[in-house]
Amino acid sequence: LNKEQVISMLDRVVVPGTGRSLVKMNLVRDIRISDENIDICVASTGLIEPSQKSLKQSIQSSLDDSTRIKVTFENVPTGTVNQIGKVIAVMSGKGGVGKSLVAGLSAIALRRRGLEVGILDADITGPSIPKMFGVQARPSGTDSAFLPPTSRSGIELMSINLLLASEDDAVVWRGPLIGQTITQFWEEAVWGKLDYLIVDLPPGTSDAPLTVMQRLPVSGIIMVFTPQKLTAMVVKKAVNMARHMEKPILGVLENMSYLYVPQINKRMNIFGESHAAEMAQSIGAPLLAQLPIDPELALLCDEGRLEQYMNPLIEEIGKGIVESNI
Amino acid sequence: LNKEQVISMLDRVVVPGTGRSLVKMNLVRDIRISDENIDICVASTGLIEPSQKSLKQSIQSSLDDSTRIKVTFENVPTGTVNQIGKVIAVMSGKGGVGKSLVAGLSAIALRRRGLEVGILDADITGPSIPKMFGVQARPSGTDSAFLPPTSRSGIELMSINLLLASEDDAVVWRGPLIGQTITQFWEEAVWGKLDYLIVDLPPGTSDAPLTVMQRLPVSGIIMVFTPQKLTAMVVKKAVNMARHMEKPILGVLENMSYLYVPQINKRMNIFGESHAAEMAQSIGAPLLAQLPIDPELALLCDEGRLEQYMNPLIEEIGKGIVESNI
Repeated sequence: LNKEQVISMLDRVVVPGTGRSLVKMNLVRDIRISDENIDICVASTGLIEPSQKSLKQSIQSSLDDSTRIKVTFENVPTGTVNQIGKVIAVMSGKGGVGKSLVAGLSAIALRRRGLEVGILDADITGPSIPKMFGVQARPSGTDSAFLPPTSRSGIELMSINLLLASEDDAVVWRGPLIGQTITQFWEEAVWGKLDYLIVDLPPGTSDAPLTVMQRLPVSGIIMVFTPQKLTAMVVKKAVNMARHMEKPILGVLENMSYLYVPQINKRMNIFGESHAAEMAQSIGAPLLAQLPIDPELALLCDEGRLEQYMNPLIEEIGKGIVESNI
Repeated sequence: LNKEQVISMLDRVVVPGTGRSLVKMNLVRDIRISDENIDICVASTGLIEPSQKSLKQSIQSSLDDSTRIKVTFENVPTGTVNQIGKVIAVMSGKGGVGKSLVAGLSAIALRRRGLEVGILDADITGPSIPKMFGVQARPSGTDSAFLPPTSRSGIELMSINLLLASEDDAVVWRGPLIGQTITQFWEEAVWGKLDYLIVDLPPGTSDAPLTVMQRLPVSGIIMVFTPQKLTAMVVKKAVNMARHMEKPILGVLENMSYLYVPQINKRMNIFGESHAAEMAQSIGAPLLAQLPIDPELALLCDEGRLEQYMNPLIEEIGKGIVESNI
């Protein structure tokens, strides 16, 4: 057995409380192979005692030569474990334009390309991500670190709604506590190795987006809007905030562009004429996609089955993100 | 000339910077009629020097017997001038469900019933009210008090967007400043006599709604939702907040209930089946109306002509509000 073989075996060992492997979670600290022993040092960050035990067993039973394996644990800071490629924030300024939908679809698009992806739901008072993905698992963890659960397709999710007793409990907090919670989701979650972390921002240009732009290494922003001029005005406020904070806009996306009515084989502009091209130009960022109003999409979101949505537009979004030079 | 006659004449004198009369603005402090003189004392609250001069002239020219009239000014606190019947907050928790639209239509409905109405736009980072009403006038005022401009039909409006150099300037403030601004809109605006003040809340259950519920004497809340289950979940958070703050819910309203497609003479449930009756029951408040998706409405909002919208549903909303026992 050489080191590569051990790593490839550890990549099949799932960390309890997550759907991801020891390798993807970046918890393998050290592997030493001698004639007598295979010493594997694992970061115990976020792992409660029973999880450590079950993980030890999984590791030992994953290798034929289990008697040679010695597993030790070492508690390291989450900052040591987390290796996140790019942080992409989905923003709008305006509420109800489909930020969470776009955050979800972006993550799904990247995941379908075989990339490792997580979503940090920074909408503390109106979190939509867990419901869209049908995830209800409570994050497990220790005092200083916790493990985000994963969706069916393996996307890591962290949202306040996973921590509430009931999904409709109100979070009646002023700004500082909201900022603190978002910072904890970033600093204390064991995200492991990710190619992309998508951050779903709430509406507005106040505490939550400020905290995200100041505390997280945001690589780029996806700006979401709808055809209404009223929306465009509020979205421009968000664009001005992003400029002020010197965060590049990776791309823009128009949601609810039109409704296709099959009975008359026609597109209806129910929220007005599209201004997608104009908006993309004035913002100076590529148009990633124009999403229609799709009753199937509303249904899938309500039923927690967003990952089953099939539409070539999703691939367009994924392509736009990975081909962006930011 | 008796006192009633003088009052009815002063009710035709418009206060500069507002579209409302001296009487409606509650600025008449005292009227004394003797054989020689008619002494009129006017509150100068919020009135800059040139406004006071022009107001004096208007008063004198409004009465035939102008030589007898003596106008004096007295600066009193806005709290003395403001006489507001009921404060109604429009809330949802969720963004983009049409809170501002419902706030606007509620004010229009009450105004069409001959009532005196104002709108306090508490959405500081995403203000929509001025654009819907086509109002751009900057509020005039003194250091300690200012006069909200009025819409074409005479609805008083106060919004952060009336104070910005450009309507798409971002307001990148943390919670405390947002709370302070809303408090100023309440305490330092010369609203005068109003039957109803409608407060348009931003999404979420954080600083802005907290400040409004703690600082303003909210009589009741109108809760807005759409057919999506995802929306229902977030709206229930807002309902739980209202209960926690002991503010009664006056009524609920479902927006974007359906789209009427004239070509096929059919209603399409593009955001899912309506849950209006179910929501009203679970919240324990009457259903004020179910608004369809109406492309005309989107257009009127974008063009600042919301007051021209004609639909019997508006009367239903007005009736629901005035007949409510809260």
